[in-house]
Parts: sequence; structure tokens; C-alpha cells
Amino acid sequence: MDTNYASIITIGDELLIGQVVDTNSAWMAQELNKIGIPIKHRVAVGDVWDDIWYALDEESKHAKIIFITGGLGPTSDDITKPLLCKYFNGKLKIDNDTLEHVKNIFLNVLKRPMIDLNVKQAEVPDTCTVLRNEKGTAPGMMFEKDGKIFISLPGVPHEMKWIMSNVVIPMLPSRVKTTNIEHRTLLTAGIGESFLAELIKDEEAALPPQIKLAYLPNSGMVRLRLTASGDDKKLLTEEINVHFEAFKQKVKDYLVIDEDLPIHSLIGRLLKDRGQTVSTAESCTGGYIAHLITSIPGASAYFKGSVVSYDNSVKTSVLDVSETTLATFGAVSEETVIQMAKRVREIMQTDYSIAVSGIMGPDGGTVEKPVGKVWIAIANKQEITTKSFDLRYNRERNIELTAINALNLLRIAICG
Amino acid sequence: MDTNYASIITIGDELLIGQVVDTNSAWMAQELNKIGIPIKHRVAVGDVWDDIWYALDEESKHAKIIFITGGLGPTSDDITKPLLCKYFNGKLKIDNDTLEHVKNIFLNVLKRPMIDLNVKQAEVPDTCTVLRNEKGTAPGMMFEKDGKIFISLPGVPHEMKWIMSNVVIPMLPSRVKTTNIEHRTLLTAGIGESFLAELIKDEEAALPPQIKLAYLPNSGMVRLRLTASGDDKKLLTEEINVHFEAFKQKVKDYLVIDEDLPIHSLIGRLLKDRGQTVSTAESCTGGYIAHLITSIPGASAYFKGSVVSYDNSVKTSVLDVSETTLATFGAVSEETVIQMAKRVREIMQTDYSIAVSGIMGPDGGTVEKPVGKVWIAIANKQEITTKSFDLRYNRERNIELTAINALNLLRIAICG
Repeated sequence: MDTNYASIITIGDELLIGQVVDTNSAWMAQELNKIGIPIKHRVAVGDVWDDIWYALDEESKHAKIIFITGGLGPTSDDITKPLLCKYFNGKLKIDNDTLEHVKNIFLNVLKRPMIDLNVKQAEVPDTCTVLRNEKGTAPGMMFEKDGKIFISLPGVPHEMKWIMSNVVIPMLPSRVKTTNIEHRTLLTAGIGESFLAELIKDEEAALPPQIKLAYLPNSGMVRLRLTASGDDKKLLTEEINVHFEAFKQKVKDYLVIDEDLPIHSLIGRLLKDRGQTVSTAESCTGGYIAHLITSIPGASAYFKGSVVSYDNSVKTSVLDVSETTLATFGAVSEETVIQMAKRVREIMQTDYSIAVSGIMGPDGGTVEKPVGKVWIAIANKQEITTKSFDLRYNRERNIELTAINALNLLRIAICG
Repeated sequence: MDTNYASIITIGDELLIGQVVDTNSAWMAQELNKIGIPIKHRVAVGDVWDDIWYALDEESKHAKIIFITGGLGPTSDDITKPLLCKYFNGKLKIDNDTLEHVKNIFLNVLKRPMIDLNVKQAEVPDTCTVLRNEKGTAPGMMFEKDGKIFISLPGVPHEMKWIMSNVVIPMLPSRVKTTNIEHRTLLTAGIGESFLAELIKDEEAALPPQIKLAYLPNSGMVRLRLTASGDDKKLLTEEINVHFEAFKQKVKDYLVIDEDLPIHSLIGRLLKDRGQTVSTAESCTGGYIAHLITSIPGASAYFKGSVVSYDNSVKTSVLDVSETTLATFGAVSEETVIQMAKRVREIMQTDYSIAVSGIMGPDGGTVEKPVGKVWIAIANKQEITTKSFDLRYNRERNIELTAINALNLLRIAICG
């Protein structure tokens, strides 16, 4: 199989000093995988002429298509454009379509006068094909050299995504041979990676070489991913489906869903299908569960709202948790989350409610209730179920795990 | 200057198909920068023997220290350990300290029996120095070859972070010569990148070659970062401070803070210093503002809680927004956010409150109120200020920008 691989080069000192996390590469990799262009390599380099040049040389040894993001802004720390101009033996010239577009953005969107620096954004090497950018002033550029394709995109995520989705992805399959790649994912909960491996060892041993298995532990759950690649799409699909069913059957007691779907999307789908609603009463998660639920478009169909009762006074005044309960059992207790769950469901008039209270750290722990102690309650009209957790991570991860565990308990309550 | 650079190699197919975002590299880069070890290069490769081998060869050409993360789990998709064993001419052997530690985790933390796969986690190449991992079962490993140092760490973020902070970072300065690196950051709001560049062009032109300026646009704000590196620490600090003051003076009308601090940390500091409190009433942000505020340890000193009134029924029942207001002006209106801000401040008894309502998309927009329309109100005892925004991004970014804008308006209200 003669695979056309892609490489991604991201440019910017901020990536090397850790001031920003590179989310662009993961998104680009997903989109390219979908159309059958696997990624061989991802590289991040600083705003250094020689390092960028070297990366272009090096990546084009291993890949057919080389993506470059970053360094196309209007300011003088950007050396990407002059470098690409020299690398591809071009001269900078004003691209008229781009200039019109930049003028239009300033006139109609920003409603501010243009300055010289903005005119420079319409300059491109005359050896490139301009990839239009409707979301910003810096255009994308495509070059070809020695049978390789080079695509340079701005680093601002929503601009990069627009050009990829609307210009690059539609064009690529006609320019390069793509490979059939199929993924299948099982999301499991309640079983560790090594025990899962023990459970499915026969199924794993039975996999043919063209199907690979990966374990992806994340947020207290483990995803299992099968990946198949090959030339015969029909055969590939049949084959991966057979193995996928075998794995699915084996892990059924721990299975959350047989898709690559985050738990908050799954919750949304379950509630929507049933015409049911949910609300949350959050102490230690501080609104993070509500945020996860509402990050999904259309959440208003099943999410009504939340009371973030971070301070105990809000637990009593808004959620009617009794002073006696707080004094006797404390804010982090089964009794407190039961009252929170009960009351928020009444206030918001929802089918289900989630309540959480815990100590996320780094401070606030006691011998009796150490950092990581969490109580969760799930209520519906008939009953309230509770569960406690002892997490042992840092604040950020404790908050995330509490939210994921709460959503998983809600899933179990919904599915019965 | 003879700089000892580091390179980071991250391993895992999940990085190349975009199933996970690599947050490890950014964190490692930050920590290494702090102790004066700059990063030259970051590379992500799949679980492919030849590609990992090639990356080790390649990165050791350019860097003194090569970090490797990922691929140290207990399952058979992990090829990193056998590869490192071969690359550094070793044989796998059980490390007794690690085995004791793994046994202890199963006995006291997981409270489950060990399986053979877990014993394998205590195997290391006999050519490595074991870097202990108190947070998990897979140890880190250090190798030395041809004057270069190779450090292999598990990919699970909290395990990697523990080994870095407690074992690697304390050890490195005695093993390699570090470079003095100083960063200074100015966070600005209300001015675009190109206009900022125009404003500070004289200061930029006056920078000596050892001080670099970078523009980092993010979440509707632009950070300006000065970076100086050199051998004479005292001179370096003096020099960067002089230039930093000049930039600070020039951007003073747009300055949010002269540190690399996110706006929600700044809000926390301002409120804590003044002994004041805040609450939020959130519609379109769905709890994200409360989440940002409570992601900072110690937020309970100044944050009391939030009402996430996603559904209009919650706006009326909990926040007393009048039916007439909703019918006449709509949920996304100045009148509605004023009532939300007023009422949540009363309920939660806080000095300040934030209220937001808007249309985040992709659906729900109308001709009159398109996707991206947002109203924000900030209340204190004396007054309520409001501002509307017209955002033009996707849902995720609209939510983020609304939160950042709301927090910035609160900052302005606090600072007067």
C-alpha cells in the first residue's frame, strides 16, 4: 500500500515556552484522518529562520503533504511569509482578491481605518496559490515543490479551521491518493487499563496485522480504539466490524458507549431521545458540570439550569439545605447532596438532577475528609441514589473527574 | 553562548489521529523554561518502531536533553520500553524498588489483586536510572548516550508532572549548564494586534538583539511578551526591565495586567485584596464563568455562587426576571441582564455580580438578534453597568469570549 502521509509543522516560540497549548494539530489530524490522509509526524518549532527551514526540508522527506500553521499575523515577529517566499523561490506581491477582502473586513466588520500593516497582509509569494480566508485577514497559501504539496495556514484556530473545512479538505482528494482508514471506539468505565487488557487478551490476539488496538485512559474511563487501514474499503469495514463486535461483547459489563463520544454528549442524546430534562446543584465543581452539558449545541432542549452553591450560605438560602444538616454532617456529606439534589430538581422542575459536594484541594482537607473526598447524588421523581469517591489528584483533575463521575451516574440512572 | 537545548518527543497514535490534545508538552516546556532549559523542538510520532527510533536519532542531533513521553502503560500497544531497551543496549530486568511500589499501590490504594501485566510494569532496561513515580505504576527512566541525556516519562499527565516536579527538575541543573531566560508579559484588551504593533513600533525598534518581542492574541485580548536570554543574569534583568517599562508606559490605556496571569486569576486577586465577593447569573455561558473563577484554589474566599438560568423559567422563578421583560425585550436584552445581575447579587449577598445572556450558536439566531449577540451586566451596590457584544465565532469560542469579556468588565468595575 502506497500511503500518502501528511506532516504538520506548527510555528511559534509560544509553543516552545509552553505559553499556549497546541489544539490546532489535533483538530487538523482528525479532519485529515476522516478523508483518509494519515499523519506521520507533528513538529513544533520556534520563530527561528533556520529551524523552520530545516523542518520543511525534513518533513518533506517523509510526507507527501506538509501543513504549516502559525506565523502569518500582521506583526514583525512573523517570519513565516518571507521564509516561504524564499523557500519556494517567489517574490512577495499584493494579491488583489485578498486586499479587497481585508479592506472589506475593516470597512464592514471592524469599522476601523486600515493601516499599512494590514495592507501587508494581502501580500503573498507569487509562487503560491492563495487559499481564501473568510474569517480573517491572513490568507492561506499552497505551494508545490518536487511532487510535494505544502499548505500554510494562519495559527488563529477559527481561521485555520475555516480554511481547512471550506478550501483545503474539499480540494485534497482530487490531488492526492487517499487511504481507507476506519476507527471504532468503545468507551468503558469502572475497569482499569491492565484489567481490561487481561479481559480482552484473546480478542486482541485474534486481530489481523491491519487492525490495531489502542488503550486510551482518560478522566477515569478507558477508551479502546480499533483502527484498520487498507485499500479495499468494503473488506476493511466488514473485517473491523466483526472484531469490534467481539470486543464489544467481551467488555459489555463496563461499556458506556460504542462510539467516540464524550459522556456529556451521550447524556444529551439520552435525555433528548426520552424528552427528559436535567438540572444541577454544584458545590465543588463550581459550574463545570453545567458547562460541559451546555457546551453541546441544542442543550436547551434538556438542560434547564444550575445552582452553584459554592458558599454554604447559598446551600441554605437557595437550596434549602438545613443548618442542622450542615452542622451535623458537614457540607461534604451524603445528607447534604441529597437535600441539594432534591431541592434543585423541584426549583428547576426537571426529571433528573445532579448534586455534588467535595474537597478539590489543594487546601481544605481534614483528617476525616481529606482532599479528594466527594459525594454525588442523582435524583429523579422516584428516588435519590448517592455515591462517594476518594479522588487523589490535583484540583483541576479532581474537578474533571467529579464531573465525569457525576455524568456517568446520571447515565446509569437514565438507562436503568 | 553555548545553550543546552531540550527536545520533547511525544509518542502515541492518538496524537496523530487527533483523539487527544497534547497538553503535556506545554507544561513541560514551561517548567524547563523556568530553570533555564529552552526547548528547541517538539515532535509527535505514532506507536511505530522505526518512527520512534528515527525521532531519537534526529532529536539528539539538535538537543542536549531529549524528553520522551507516552507509551509506558501496561498494555501491548506500548512499544516504547522494549525500544528504549534496544536503543540503549540494555536488557529488561525487574526493578525491585518499583515492584515494591507497584505491589503497595495494589494493596493499599487500588485494593485489588495484581496481575502479571502489573509485574511487567516494574521491568526496566538495566542501562537506565529509574525515576520514581509515586503517582502511578510505570516508572520514569533516564539514559545517557554520547553525552546526551534521555528522559522517558509516562504519558498520563498527573504522573508525568509528579516525576518532573519531584525528580527531574531538581536534578537537572547539576547535570547540564542552564541558560538565563527572562520573560515579561503585558496583557492588553480593547486593541487589535496590528494597531498595537503600530502603537509600540518605536519601542520595538529599540530592542537589542537578545530581547525578543512576541504578540500572542488570545480570547479577544493580546499578550505582549518580551523574552531575554544570556549569560549575565544581572545585566539581563536590568535590561529587560528597562524595555518592559517603556512598553508598559506606551500601552497603559489598554493594559489589563503586567504579568502572565489569566483574567480569572487576576479577578481573584483583586477581590481577595479588597475583601470583596462576587456571584454570577449565567444564561448563555452555562456556568463557564463560575467554573473559571472556581478553577483557582482559594476561590471560596470571594466567590459565593451562581445561578445558571439556561431556561427562561429559571430566569423568572429563581432570578425574578419579569415575564413582561422577557416578552417585551427578550431573554437576550439589556433589561433582562440588569434584572438577573440585580437579583443574583441580592440572593447571594455579594459585593459584585455578573449577569450574561446571549446566543452562542450554531442555532437560535434571528435577523434582529443573530448568533453572537451578547448582553453583559455588572452590578454592585451603587450601580449596574451594561455592555453588548457582537461575537462572530463558533459556539465554543463565543462562550469563552463572553466569559473573558464579562470578567474584564468586572475588573474595570472593581478598579474603577
